[in-house]
Amino acid sequence: MLLRFTKMHGLGNDFMVIDLVSQHAHIQPKHAKQWGDRHTGVGFDQLLIVEPPLNPDVDFRYRIFNADGSEVEQCGNGARCFARFVIDKRLTTKRVVRVETKGGVIELELRQDGQVRVDMGPPRLVPADIPFDAAEEALSYPLQVDGQTVELAAVSMGNPHAVIRVDDVDTAAVHELGPQIETHPRFPRRVNVGFLQVLDRQRARLRVWERGAGETQACGTGACAAAVAAIRQGWMDSPLQIELPGGRLSIEWAGTGHPVMMIGPAVRVFEGQVRL
Amino acid sequence: MLLRFTKMHGLGNDFMVIDLVSQHAHIQPKHAKQWGDRHTGVGFDQLLIVEPPLNPDVDFRYRIFNADGSEVEQCGNGARCFARFVIDKRLTTKRVVRVETKGGVIELELRQDGQVRVDMGPPRLVPADIPFDAAEEALSYPLQVDGQTVELAAVSMGNPHAVIRVDDVDTAAVHELGPQIETHPRFPRRVNVGFLQVLDRQRARLRVWERGAGETQACGTGACAAAVAAIRQGWMDSPLQIELPGGRLSIEWAGTGHPVMMIGPAVRVFEGQVRL
Repeated sequence: MLLRFTKMHGLGNDFMVIDLVSQHAHIQPKHAKQWGDRHTGVGFDQLLIVEPPLNPDVDFRYRIFNADGSEVEQCGNGARCFARFVIDKRLTTKRVVRVETKGGVIELELRQDGQVRVDMGPPRLVPADIPFDAAEEALSYPLQVDGQTVELAAVSMGNPHAVIRVDDVDTAAVHELGPQIETHPRFPRRVNVGFLQVLDRQRARLRVWERGAGETQACGTGACAAAVAAIRQGWMDSPLQIELPGGRLSIEWAGTGHPVMMIGPAVRVFEGQVRL
Repeated sequence: MLLRFTKMHGLGNDFMVIDLVSQHAHIQPKHAKQWGDRHTGVGFDQLLIVEPPLNPDVDFRYRIFNADGSEVEQCGNGARCFARFVIDKRLTTKRVVRVETKGGVIELELRQDGQVRVDMGPPRLVPADIPFDAAEEALSYPLQVDGQTVELAAVSMGNPHAVIRVDDVDTAAVHELGPQIETHPRFPRRVNVGFLQVLDRQRARLRVWERGAGETQACGTGACAAAVAAIRQGWMDSPLQIELPGGRLSIEWAGTGHPVMMIGPAVRVFEGQVRL
C-alpha cells in the first residue's frame, strides 16, 4: 500500500509524520529504521505517528520513534509539529488539542501568528520519577564524572534531563561531559544533558546532548527543563527565551505544580507517499 | 505552485528528481540549497532536473546540482536513477534512452533484472580535456603532494578523476590526500580522487573523495575512471566489478576509443510534493 506522510521540522529537529487516524497500517520499529536513513529512506530525527486516542478525554494519541527504531516518551519540537499537522490536515476543528503521549497527556494550541503553544505538563522533580538515583529532592546535585564533580539539576519533562550551568555554551564540554552523564549509573534510563548559559533574567543560551542522538540543533523538552532549573535556582524569571543552535523558544512556568508552557515554530516541508 | 518530485538512490548516493518535461517551473540554485538541507528541506546529495532535449538527436536533457547550488557535469549514480525515472514515469516508451548532460551525451538501458546499464561515453585521457596540467598524455603521472610523490592516473568521465592504487582501501589516506589532490593546482577545475585496491583481475575495492562533497558511499563515474585506469595499466581485465562502500558496480570497457559501460541499481524511495 501507499502511505501518505508529511515531512516537518521544528527548529531543524525534523519529523516524518504519519496520520493513522484516516489511514490504516501496521507500522513497526523496522520501518522507522528503514525510513529514517537519510540516503536510502525518507530521513528524519524522529517518526511521529498520529493515532486515535485510547482515552475518551483526549483528542489524539501519538507515538514517537527514533531512526534506530527505539520509542521516545516525549519530544517538544515533535509536539508542536503534531499540533500543526492535525489542524492543517483537518483531523480536528479545534485550535486547542489534548493529546496522549507515552510521557503523559499534553495540551497544544495553534496561535494566530502560526506559532504553537504547548502545555508540556508540570515538571517532575522527585528523583525516583526522573529517574535519578538520589536520597531526596534538591535544587541541584553533585555528580562525580570523569574525576570531577559536576553540579546539575535533574528534571523530567516526560523524559529525563540534567541541566548544567556554564559560563559560555560555545566552549562548554558538550561532547565530553554529554555522553558520560548520559550513561551515568545514577540515571538508570539514561538522560538528556543541557548546558545552559544565562545571559540575563529573561534570556539564556542552551546546547543539549540528547540520549541516543548526540548534540542536536534544538531540544524542546531540554529548553523546558533548563527553564525550570533556572527559575527554581533563582537565576531567571518567567516568561523567558531560550536560544538553541536551531532557533528560539519561549518558555513560561509559574512554579512548582504548574505546567510548563513552550511556544515555538512548526514548519511543513513537503508531502510524500511511501510504499509500505 | 506544488511541484512533484521523486526521491531515489543509487548505492546510497541520493537524488531529488524533478520532471520538468510534464511540469513547468523555473528552478534556481537557491532551491537546490533550500531543498538540499537534510533537516529543513527534502535532503539529497544532488538535485536532478529532467528537461526536454535542446538537440533533436536525444530524448532528454538533464542537469545536476549539488546541495550547495553548484552545477555538476556528470554523475553515474544519477544517470541510473534518471533512466529508471523516465521509464517508470512513462516519459518515454523506449528501454534505451539517449540523454544530453553538461558532460556530454550518454545512453541508458533499463535491463530486465531492474539494473540500469549506462553508456558513459569514452573516457577522455588527453590532459587538457580532463583538465590536468601535464606536457603529454601518460598512463600515470607523478604528483607532488605534501612533500611526497603520489603516482596517479588522470581520467575524465565528463568530470575529472585522479586514480591512485593502494594496498588496502581501509587504511588508505583518503581524508588526508583526498582534499590536497582535489585542490592541487595541476587540476584547475579540481578533481575527484579514487583510491583503488585491486583484489584480482576482475575485482577491486574503491573509495572516492568527491570534489566539494568529501568521501562518499559510491561514486559511479569514479568507478568508471578507476576501471579505465586499471585496464590501461594492465592490472585488470574487462568486465570487472568494483566494490564501493555503498555497494557494487559492474564496469565494461573494450579499450581506448570505446565507451565505458556501467551496470548497477537505481531505487525509487518515495514520491513527494513541495511548494515552489
